Amino acid sequence: MLQIPPYRFSRRIQATPRSMIREILKVTERPDIISFAGGLPSPAFLDTSGVARAAEHVLTEDGCAALQYATSEGFMPLREWIAGRYKTRFGLFVDPEEVLITHGSQQTLDILGRIFIDEGDPVAIEAPGYLGAIQAFSQYMPTFHTVPLREEGADPMTFADILEQTRPVFSYVIPNSQNPSGITYTTGCRKELAGIHKESSTLLIEDDAYGEIRFTREKRPSFGNLLPREKVVLLGSFSKIVSPGLRIGWLCAEKEIIDQAVTAKQASDLHSNIFAQRMLCRYLQENDIDTHISRITGAYAAQCSLMLRLMDELFPVEVRYTRPDGGMFIWLTLPPGCSAMELWRRALAENVAILPGTPFYTDGAGDHGVRLNFSNSDEERIVAGMTLLARVLERYLEECRRG
Amino acid sequence: MLQIPPYRFSRRIQATPRSMIREILKVTERPDIISFAGGLPSPAFLDTSGVARAAEHVLTEDGCAALQYATSEGFMPLREWIAGRYKTRFGLFVDPEEVLITHGSQQTLDILGRIFIDEGDPVAIEAPGYLGAIQAFSQYMPTFHTVPLREEGADPMTFADILEQTRPVFSYVIPNSQNPSGITYTTGCRKELAGIHKESSTLLIEDDAYGEIRFTREKRPSFGNLLPREKVVLLGSFSKIVSPGLRIGWLCAEKEIIDQAVTAKQASDLHSNIFAQRMLCRYLQENDIDTHISRITGAYAAQCSLMLRLMDELFPVEVRYTRPDGGMFIWLTLPPGCSAMELWRRALAENVAILPGTPFYTDGAGDHGVRLNFSNSDEERIVAGMTLLARVLERYLEECRRG
Repeated sequence: MLQIPPYRFSRRIQATPRSMIREILKVTERPDIISFAGGLPSPAFLDTSGVARAAEHVLTEDGCAALQYATSEGFMPLREWIAGRYKTRFGLFVDPEEVLITHGSQQTLDILGRIFIDEGDPVAIEAPGYLGAIQAFSQYMPTFHTVPLREEGADPMTFADILEQTRPVFSYVIPNSQNPSGITYTTGCRKELAGIHKESSTLLIEDDAYGEIRFTREKRPSFGNLLPREKVVLLGSFSKIVSPGLRIGWLCAEKEIIDQAVTAKQASDLHSNIFAQRMLCRYLQENDIDTHISRITGAYAAQCSLMLRLMDELFPVEVRYTRPDGGMFIWLTLPPGCSAMELWRRALAENVAILPGTPFYTDGAGDHGVRLNFSNSDEERIVAGMTLLARVLERYLEECRRG
Repeated sequence: MLQIPPYRFSRRIQATPRSMIREILKVTERPDIISFAGGLPSPAFLDTSGVARAAEHVLTEDGCAALQYATSEGFMPLREWIAGRYKTRFGLFVDPEEVLITHGSQQTLDILGRIFIDEGDPVAIEAPGYLGAIQAFSQYMPTFHTVPLREEGADPMTFADILEQTRPVFSYVIPNSQNPSGITYTTGCRKELAGIHKESSTLLIEDDAYGEIRFTREKRPSFGNLLPREKVVLLGSFSKIVSPGLRIGWLCAEKEIIDQAVTAKQASDLHSNIFAQRMLCRYLQENDIDTHISRITGAYAAQCSLMLRLMDELFPVEVRYTRPDGGMFIWLTLPPGCSAMELWRRALAENVAILPGTPFYTDGAGDHGVRLNFSNSDEERIVAGMTLLARVLERYLEECRRG
């Protein structure tokens, strides 16, 4: 007899894609696997002793305030640090009241979906786009309109068409070292997109999770420089520069948006872990974060460049790939007729893990693409893994050619 | 010229009540105010040195794993501790895989709303009900059906009618030291409600945030003892026994529900702060939590009893109130014609803060009720505050009588 379960789940959660990454990472936790599938920062730059000092100072000096309930908006000195950083990096004047601390970037995305998306609302997003954003927004059941990525950034023509024809509630972009493609928008592309958005009713959301991880000194403007404050929401995170495990990110926007975001934040989890906020703030005061960041970028630049060199040498010429100048990812495009899922299976049989491109597309496309992470593997594993992957690729492409 | 803002907010966030508590707490942060308005645990039991030791041990011994990305389900040893606690407290056998770690109870409520509520779905909730739950669920736009609280617990007759007539997706109850009323359901009431739910299609959600803070030794069963696993979701939190600032709570349910909750958790914020999870787990291993809890309950019992004694002596007889045997709150009922909002204003003028009852009702009722917190005030402030409040009450009731 079939038993009917005594509950049923919401349409919303049924519409939410389960992250393939999570399932794939479970496999790749095996120590014998060389994994380029995840999106983890290098453990070499997780400064446990610096964090331990900050933790001790907070608990000794701040006392009970570090363990008690706190405000939904976040710890003011941390909001001030973030506002100051916008000044240093972009010459942007941000009021600390325009910054809301969240439990990591993923929560920022969830809050934005929650306060802006009604069912069926149009949303513009890059293709390929960040899978965490696709997952967060999907819960609120928007209609996605995708803008293909070119070498210079998201295609302005497509963007203009989408904005004119569908009037999205917002556009979501990662202009610096985009996840998954590794592409950084040119200044020209940014200006063009800003112009298109300025004349539309569409808010632009700039996710800058990788903006501090740049391999060149060349400066690119933030959309915060190019658009009036009420047209842009800026997102940031400490995951790539201090620690992802602490789950601290933020959202910067004009006060009217912050007000609604605070209501959503409060309904979500009251406030972010206050001990972690105070500890992080202390860590930023006690350590030279710029030196720390330049160590991270130095290492990632070397890892990325090694990976690209090996791909240049060893990969079949039909496989194309991006040449990132920052961030943590390279994006591969397989020749027509080849499947990234099939490549994933074959590579895993050789103990190499990659991430197939499908979850980065809102429409189930993307089986031609592969995301490779270079931040979490040392030189030795990069050499070993790329050598293995090159061999798998060669054999697979040979088969594809034969049909 | 009126400028039209370049965005509009979702219906969902417009349907979400902003917490009155937050606004009220802002006023009561002034040190000259004696506040019974908040819901804060006593700072005396926030063990900063114990937490500092645990933090140091985690960062020294667990190393990078304490700062890296982690699994959405939560830190396994902490899930095991929670499963073990169900065994000790209730003789319940819980698989650690049936426990999901959340960023505090509020996030658990948000996740439950997210996975179960489609717009318009019926939800059964106590009246007065916990305002955080009303706020979390409201985002998903259910139709609330309220069950009045009696001395023995939520009224079974009303519950039976609601379940039969509207078939709610779930019932949400706080059977131990309910927030805001302070009422603890009798064993008889629990059995009756379990019986009613067993024969319905409605899931029962038991929020047990205060279950460890009991002033008597008398044991009451959990709904986990009275209902089959697939009919009940159990919620818990470390906020009242270790620290609210760390934001760690949990949800315990059968695997099918956990699966959906994990998807929602992942879309919400990937995972809870792993450093905090490991630190808390370490804290529970290194300290005698039962002794710690008995110190907390001893102090709160004394504070509650002092407050009740002063109310017995000083309050006008027309004011009725509950006599809690646990938790952190007493609920006052004003005589007809008196307004809790007006009392709040008058008390605040005398530097005493109370919490008016309106936000605990889904329909704007509740202006006859007042919630008083006894956990966060020492003896001296309780005596001073109750004396002032008695005087304000006396004068106000006199005016009400005169009309």
